Amino acid sequence: MTSAANGDPAGVPESLPGAEPGHGGWVLGIDLGGTGSRAALEPLGLPFGQRRRVLEGGRVAVASAGSTVIDVAASLIDAARSEWPDAAITAVGIGATGLASLVPDPDAAARRLSAVVGGAAAPTGSTTPARVPVALAVDALTAHLGALGGRAGAVVAVGTGAIALGTDLDAVWRRVGGWGHLWDDRGSGVWIGIEALKAAIRTHDGVTADATALLHAAEARFGPAPTWPGELLTRADRAGVIAGFAPEVAALAAGGDPAASVIMRTAGTEVAATLVAALDPDLPRLASWTGGVFSADGAYREGFEAEFARLAPDASLRAPLGSPLDGAVRLARLIATGGRPAAHPPFVWR
Amino acid sequence: MTSAANGDPAGVPESLPGAEPGHGGWVLGIDLGGTGSRAALEPLGLPFGQRRRVLEGGRVAVASAGSTVIDVAASLIDAARSEWPDAAITAVGIGATGLASLVPDPDAAARRLSAVVGGAAAPTGSTTPARVPVALAVDALTAHLGALGGRAGAVVAVGTGAIALGTDLDAVWRRVGGWGHLWDDRGSGVWIGIEALKAAIRTHDGVTADATALLHAAEARFGPAPTWPGELLTRADRAGVIAGFAPEVAALAAGGDPAASVIMRTAGTEVAATLVAALDPDLPRLASWTGGVFSADGAYREGFEAEFARLAPDASLRAPLGSPLDGAVRLARLIATGGRPAAHPPFVWR
Repeated sequence: MTSAANGDPAGVPESLPGAEPGHGGWVLGIDLGGTGSRAALEPLGLPFGQRRRVLEGGRVAVASAGSTVIDVAASLIDAARSEWPDAAITAVGIGATGLASLVPDPDAAARRLSAVVGGAAAPTGSTTPARVPVALAVDALTAHLGALGGRAGAVVAVGTGAIALGTDLDAVWRRVGGWGHLWDDRGSGVWIGIEALKAAIRTHDGVTADATALLHAAEARFGPAPTWPGELLTRADRAGVIAGFAPEVAALAAGGDPAASVIMRTAGTEVAATLVAALDPDLPRLASWTGGVFSADGAYREGFEAEFARLAPDASLRAPLGSPLDGAVRLARLIATGGRPAAHPPFVWR
Repeated sequence: MTSAANGDPAGVPESLPGAEPGHGGWVLGIDLGGTGSRAALEPLGLPFGQRRRVLEGGRVAVASAGSTVIDVAASLIDAARSEWPDAAITAVGIGATGLASLVPDPDAAARRLSAVVGGAAAPTGSTTPARVPVALAVDALTAHLGALGGRAGAVVAVGTGAIALGTDLDAVWRRVGGWGHLWDDRGSGVWIGIEALKAAIRTHDGVTADATALLHAAEARFGPAPTWPGELLTRADRAGVIAGFAPEVAALAAGGDPAASVIMRTAGTEVAATLVAALDPDLPRLASWTGGVFSADGAYREGFEAEFARLAPDASLRAPLGSPLDGAVRLARLIATGGRPAAHPPFVWR
């Protein structure tokens, strides 16, 4: 693990005033994903983002016995306790991929993680760990909290998969997408990768001739086309592996390749439709997004913005305020101050 | 296993004149697939299809150690030897799914199967098994031989997957498709099933509202939509399971459901494009098909025929002469009489 201080200019001595009267202790936000995980610790008594410390951890694996998400979370909490032993953690917000479908009992997992934190929060000399509030949330919720900063509306999170959540953190919880690479996750990294392989194999077989650049890129990455079934179809991590091809498709589109541009533009269009579907009638017409694919200008972004404007001309589409890690910190702040969200499976467990 | 005599009217005593001079012995054709397998035995000295006997065997499974295709073939050969011990088998033609990608050494498998048959063909009292010619072919080739009866041209075989082969059994071997459910097999059973699930999940999530009937049918078959990822994505046999939904999609289309009709028509269109791409310029402009999905009239068949006529207006599209099992028997007859095809991996091994 590596640690970094954020908001402390170099040369300023670190202070960890967790025990100071009136400070309110520290909140820990954790973002767990298939490509890595991070934890952010910051004082509750200061404005959001100030004096933040960040730790990086391992990535979540999906084993046959289920996801390792809770183990990764526990090890990040332990690491935060070791790194900053004087910081009394008073609340933890966790966003994780695959929570609802891959963790057998998220309620029990939240209690277990609370006990892990509790050891650190116990007063010196006490043998009974304090009960530290922990909120375990699907990553769509931490993406939402990060992008809209706690306001009601809809946010689409695009990574390997694509999922949108429309919520006011209270009565409205509307999920769209995120159902996996075979019949859903439209416009996501794995969707882009699969569409690129579809175009490539058509060109390989002589059905069409317009995706030569995609075919060359795919064969450079995955080997000759006839080997793809044996290499990719049997892998449990095939979605992530194929999603890893998406940046190359985006680069080809940016370079003007027509077949790649069509795929990227359509991906943006599909993601916009997913986002608009999450704009429940009982929510304000406010929407945002998160995910690295949006950072590429060009066909994807154009398709996304044009389709959003077409489908929801009355809604406001705003650039995200922050990341899913920011959202996890906001979640910790919300439960530390006793506010929303209450437990609301399958979105958030307390 | 069950056996049936084909071409012998009930009441006529069976005769098995395998040892008669000038008869030329018996040929065995075997068709191995994911849903079942069959063997057909008939006398080489009589016209194709006469005095045929048929055995049914198990289905081929794809295990982590590879396909069971060779074991299923060996057990069908053993069963034929036991059922008709007086029939001297002089050649065997086998068509199998997944040969090129799932059987590590098809050459060695052909030799092993030859030895299995050889025991039955050895003269009484001999301890050295005769070397019986065995041809092991991809199912696209036996589909081709069955549909075109040995003539040159192109045939598309549609089952769980979709693959077309254009060949003259000699110099031209052009394969299109059959590369698996994730980026290929356009228009196949699994493709139809996936497209139906795509339409269903959009309706479930409120992105579109036009596939209510498909959603209801899919939930009746696979359970509530949120359970599909856990139920289907992790299964090794997911392609076959999802392809099993295709007949229901076809039935909804036949009943006039618009969303299902679009899927079936597009499937037919895609399969036509696959077939036309296999019509190599060095082949006669002759094409056919095989697969149960063609038996349904309606949107699929209309889409297929219209697109074929559009893409290859100069080519002749003919109804299939026979089945892949017929093709396996024709393959056995061809090698028994010393003709084509020679060994030509990855299409046929001798």
